[in-house]
Amino acid sequence: MTPGLAFFYGGMVRSRGVLNMLMMSLGSIGVVGVLWVLVGYSTAFGSDVGGVGLLGDPTEFFGLSSLLGEDQLSDSIPTMAFVGFQAMFAILTVALVSGAIADRARFGPWLLFAALWAVVVYFPVAHWVFAFDSTDDAGTVTAVGGWIANRIAAIDFAGGTAVHINAGAAALALALVLGKRTGWPKDPGKPHNLPFVVLGAGLLWFGWFGFNAGSALAADTTAAVVLVNTLVATSAAMLGWLLVERIRDGHATTLGAASGIVAGLVAITPACSSVTPLGAIAVGAITGAVCALSVSLKFRFGYDDSLDVVGVHLVGGLMGTLLVGLFASASAPAGVDGLFYGGGLDQLWRQAVGAVAVLVYSFVLSLVLALLVKAVVGFRLGEEDEAVGIDETEHAEAAYHFSDSGSARRAPVAADDVERELEGSRA
Amino acid sequence: MTPGLAFFYGGMVRSRGVLNMLMMSLGSIGVVGVLWVLVGYSTAFGSDVGGVGLLGDPTEFFGLSSLLGEDQLSDSIPTMAFVGFQAMFAILTVALVSGAIADRARFGPWLLFAALWAVVVYFPVAHWVFAFDSTDDAGTVTAVGGWIANRIAAIDFAGGTAVHINAGAAALALALVLGKRTGWPKDPGKPHNLPFVVLGAGLLWFGWFGFNAGSALAADTTAAVVLVNTLVATSAAMLGWLLVERIRDGHATTLGAASGIVAGLVAITPACSSVTPLGAIAVGAITGAVCALSVSLKFRFGYDDSLDVVGVHLVGGLMGTLLVGLFASASAPAGVDGLFYGGGLDQLWRQAVGAVAVLVYSFVLSLVLALLVKAVVGFRLGEEDEAVGIDETEHAEAAYHFSDSGSARRAPVAADDVERELEGSRA
Amino acid sequence: MTPGLAFFYGGMVRSRGVLNMLMMSLGSIGVVGVLWVLVGYSTAFGSDVGGVGLLGDPTEFFGLSSLLGEDQLSDSIPTMAFVGFQAMFAILTVALVSGAIADRARFGPWLLFAALWAVVVYFPVAHWVFAFDSTDDAGTVTAVGGWIANRIAAIDFAGGTAVHINAGAAALALALVLGKRTGWPKDPGKPHNLPFVVLGAGLLWFGWFGFNAGSALAADTTAAVVLVNTLVATSAAMLGWLLVERIRDGHATTLGAASGIVAGLVAITPACSSVTPLGAIAVGAITGAVCALSVSLKFRFGYDDSLDVVGVHLVGGLMGTLLVGLFASASAPAGVDGLFYGGGLDQLWRQAVGAVAVLVYSFVLSLVLALLVKAVVGFRLGEEDEAVGIDETEHAEAAYHFSDSGSARRAPVAADDVERELEGSRA
Repeated sequence: MTPGLAFFYGGMVRSRGVLNMLMMSLGSIGVVGVLWVLVGYSTAFGSDVGGVGLLGDPTEFFGLSSLLGEDQLSDSIPTMAFVGFQAMFAILTVALVSGAIADRARFGPWLLFAALWAVVVYFPVAHWVFAFDSTDDAGTVTAVGGWIANRIAAIDFAGGTAVHINAGAAALALALVLGKRTGWPKDPGKPHNLPFVVLGAGLLWFGWFGFNAGSALAADTTAAVVLVNTLVATSAAMLGWLLVERIRDGHATTLGAASGIVAGLVAITPACSSVTPLGAIAVGAITGAVCALSVSLKFRFGYDDSLDVVGVHLVGGLMGTLLVGLFASASAPAGVDGLFYGGGLDQLWRQAVGAVAVLVYSFVLSLVLALLVKAVVGFRLGEEDEAVGIDETEHAEAAYHFSDSGSARRAPVAADDVERELEGSRA
Repeated sequence: MTPGLAFFYGGMVRSRGVLNMLMMSLGSIGVVGVLWVLVGYSTAFGSDVGGVGLLGDPTEFFGLSSLLGEDQLSDSIPTMAFVGFQAMFAILTVALVSGAIADRARFGPWLLFAALWAVVVYFPVAHWVFAFDSTDDAGTVTAVGGWIANRIAAIDFAGGTAVHINAGAAALALALVLGKRTGWPKDPGKPHNLPFVVLGAGLLWFGWFGFNAGSALAADTTAAVVLVNTLVATSAAMLGWLLVERIRDGHATTLGAASGIVAGLVAITPACSSVTPLGAIAVGAITGAVCALSVSLKFRFGYDDSLDVVGVHLVGGLMGTLLVGLFASASAPAGVDGLFYGGGLDQLWRQAVGAVAVLVYSFVLSLVLALLVKAVVGFRLGEEDEAVGIDETEHAEAAYHFSDSGSARRAPVAADDVERELEGSRA
Repeated sequence: MTPGLAFFYGGMVRSRGVLNMLMMSLGSIGVVGVLWVLVGYSTAFGSDVGGVGLLGDPTEFFGLSSLLGEDQLSDSIPTMAFVGFQAMFAILTVALVSGAIADRARFGPWLLFAALWAVVVYFPVAHWVFAFDSTDDAGTVTAVGGWIANRIAAIDFAGGTAVHINAGAAALALALVLGKRTGWPKDPGKPHNLPFVVLGAGLLWFGWFGFNAGSALAADTTAAVVLVNTLVATSAAMLGWLLVERIRDGHATTLGAASGIVAGLVAITPACSSVTPLGAIAVGAITGAVCALSVSLKFRFGYDDSLDVVGVHLVGGLMGTLLVGLFASASAPAGVDGLFYGGGLDQLWRQAVGAVAVLVYSFVLSLVLALLVKAVVGFRLGEEDEAVGIDETEHAEAAYHFSDSGSARRAPVAADDVERELEGSRA
């Protein structure tokens, strides 16, 4: 999935910044992958410190050696499988943040920020949302989990708060600290390779089926319902986004379709186990339309969230999390009724608390960490380097070298072709 | 898989039409994904209307809410998993059709056609082919399924008729209704990005393992045999196609290899459970060679099937479906002998009836629907818009913006490089 | 995975040779896929000839028909699933070799070499390494397997010796027989499409999870540990490679990140079941750094291993295989202690014997086969054809036709854009 994200993002930037976008995603894998083994899993899923649901014991599973035996999460799932599965969430969330700061963040400081943010923001929030209380057969709590999952009982099946609101709020903070790209918003830059954007969205979609269905932790009915909901919410979100574009701009665009897909995936992530397929269509269509409208907020408020992490992940995550409070149906696996199904405001309130808590925590801490990195090592590329292009200055590379495809000595049949091509490029 | 198809098709068109190809595939996901939840699954797998095997009750599972409980298809497969799995087939089949009308179909009318075609053609045909009778322990039929699957007992494991012949026949009808691209056949256009074609074929191949092996509805020996047959038939088909090219044109091409892969996948789709691995090699090699010859039919008969949906899917689907009648072996999981294995003409006859029925139904209805769309809203792009390029006129986008990779102020080391690149492009 | 490799390799060559790189991978699938059904599986996993562990009976499972029934490898794994799974290893190993001979090998002779090498080198070596003795309940050996797996008891979980050392040694032999590309090493050529390199590495990574975890032949704790180890070793290897680059060259590159990913995957392949996650980090980081240094060996010794198969796969495979002898921990599923965990030199010695045996056998036989192909049909492209470009001369194709994206009659809004693009390219 993270390579999927890399292409979704990489295709959207100018061609002189695509490698840096790919590298920010790859760097997240490297840094967070290693940290997960050291302290991440422990912080998220270790024994709760103090029993208040804020933090797992960061040293409990240091190096994960204690989990190598026959430790089982359930009859069919070894604990280590869960460790690996949750590592993917941690990595993806960090990589998502990078979309806000295209073309202007130095690579080393990004890796530093990614490491700090994972430890200070993601790992604890994952504990809040994903660590469930353990209970014995009598229902007594034997191990305390995170406060949002258990005390608030917000429904967040696969990461609407912990992943998307979290990443979106951090993205907003980073965009504010790093400031606008030179020339923005007059010249926002065009996506240099829209097929890559679609490729990335397609890979994300495929991986997301794994994320959402895998979160059922079994190949059962819940996983199957989640899979169907993920498919149709995304379909509806794409149509919703395209419809807004068609009405507002006159054209349905490829960038809109790919963005609608991602918005739909974001929205259904928290909701996929608690709505019916018709509810999923509603959640998807509404979120797709709302996100299509939200991505212009940055122009109104003047923050350069380059690839719309705020408009898609923060807004989409909020929509999905809150719409659970409206569209949840007791006939779905989660078994809870939302406002529209006669459940009143109870679940909506829980969803709102979870969403706001993660939003505020992530935004404030991200701001602090970004300012810290900026103060200590500097974060932003120099103005001159930005003009040259970040791939060149940070990685000493250019993404493409196409020109030698037409060689000096091509066969006659191809020569015509070169002729025609040159005419085309002269036109 | 459908993103795989998008790239297989997208790489083959000119660069000014690639986004529209991607969008026709994405649009199929959107439209068919939603329709599947509303009426599609019901029409295909609902209780047979009248007990004649033509149509499931379209309203039976409206919204799928009745399947959210513990409804099981078998011990290990929840019904909703089957719903999701079959949705992928419906989506892919509709997307396949779009390959015939590259560069000249307006996007809105395509979505309308896709919706109508799914409802009127695909959903019923899926009932014919994929809905099996239910029987009680005594063998008495308790619920009637589709006529081809049960009355005719044609073997179509994963969609030779319902997917490939169906899509191929519709593609032919659309190509006839929309007419040729301007300049065709004098200038058929070159694939603008052959690596994308290979990428698409690779993703299709990967997804196809899921389609074919998944159609066993269990992780058992049948699934394993299907997997091996899918691999070797495709290998053999690629070699068959390349051999024809080498002999006829002197060169084995990348486009040929990718097309051979897809032709092999098409051919083994109906046959993968009924032939031995050696039979699979034969089915693949024969179909690869025949399809390599078939793709020139469009030039002889003068229909502009732009990306060879007819030559690959219709011809490949017919070959695979009919070759089951010759190469089926009782030692394979389906347990039926074809002509070459001493089973006589019985199975061949059944295969032919299934194939012809789907071909005729799909072609006639597709023709009617396409003419209807053409009459009511118009289907084809204006001549001037076609000259400008469909990405620009329909989606207001261009796929690529590579030029700014060479910026005005590159580091000295890179300047040489630009120099050399420019020399190359001038040559 | 093999399409993943195709893009990893294809992106690294010049744009006039990318199709040939893709075709060498696709050709491996075609040739080896068919051979596997005929004699490959038998040679690797048939009854040992003479009971010395060198060769399975090549005719035993000809055509695989005898495995179509309910033949089971274990309770949950049909033998045919194992057949299909191992076919992927055979195909990938052959495709790996092609990276050494970019831009200069004729396609037909490559297919011939691939076929010969699979039969003479890979199939027997797979028997040595992957065919385990069968034992009855009393522990008596009922069927003899390969000598490295059983007599030497080297630990090679998923192919450090049989896949990577094997392919790397053959690559070295081929590079020597075919000689340098014209102009090398003065002009080694730049990767024409680095995003493709990253895409390929990402697809390889995804597939590798399947290879390594699948080698546990069950969805159990071993598979889960393997998965986590594969993730973190790769993360660490990427960081190791980037660190070497940063210190040596001043920049961390995308090519380095992608290469580090692959080096890490190679190194953890033999080791993934025998080390702890901390051990996996060590194995990855060390190998990433060593391989980053090794890829310059070709310049010192003057062999043109175009895409660093030797530096990444041979060196990485040796590192991974030997480091098992140091970092193996009895707490990991394999249950063996290496030198650093108090196990002494015993396992290191076994690892070294396995590694050297495969290296020598593969190098010598590959040399003989390559010289044979060269003598009988010629192997290398003519000098003039090499200058024209191998895609043109061998496949009569060019990978890209981008130029017509700017058409003569674009809408006014786009015309500006073309203007700006042309200015960019003139700069």
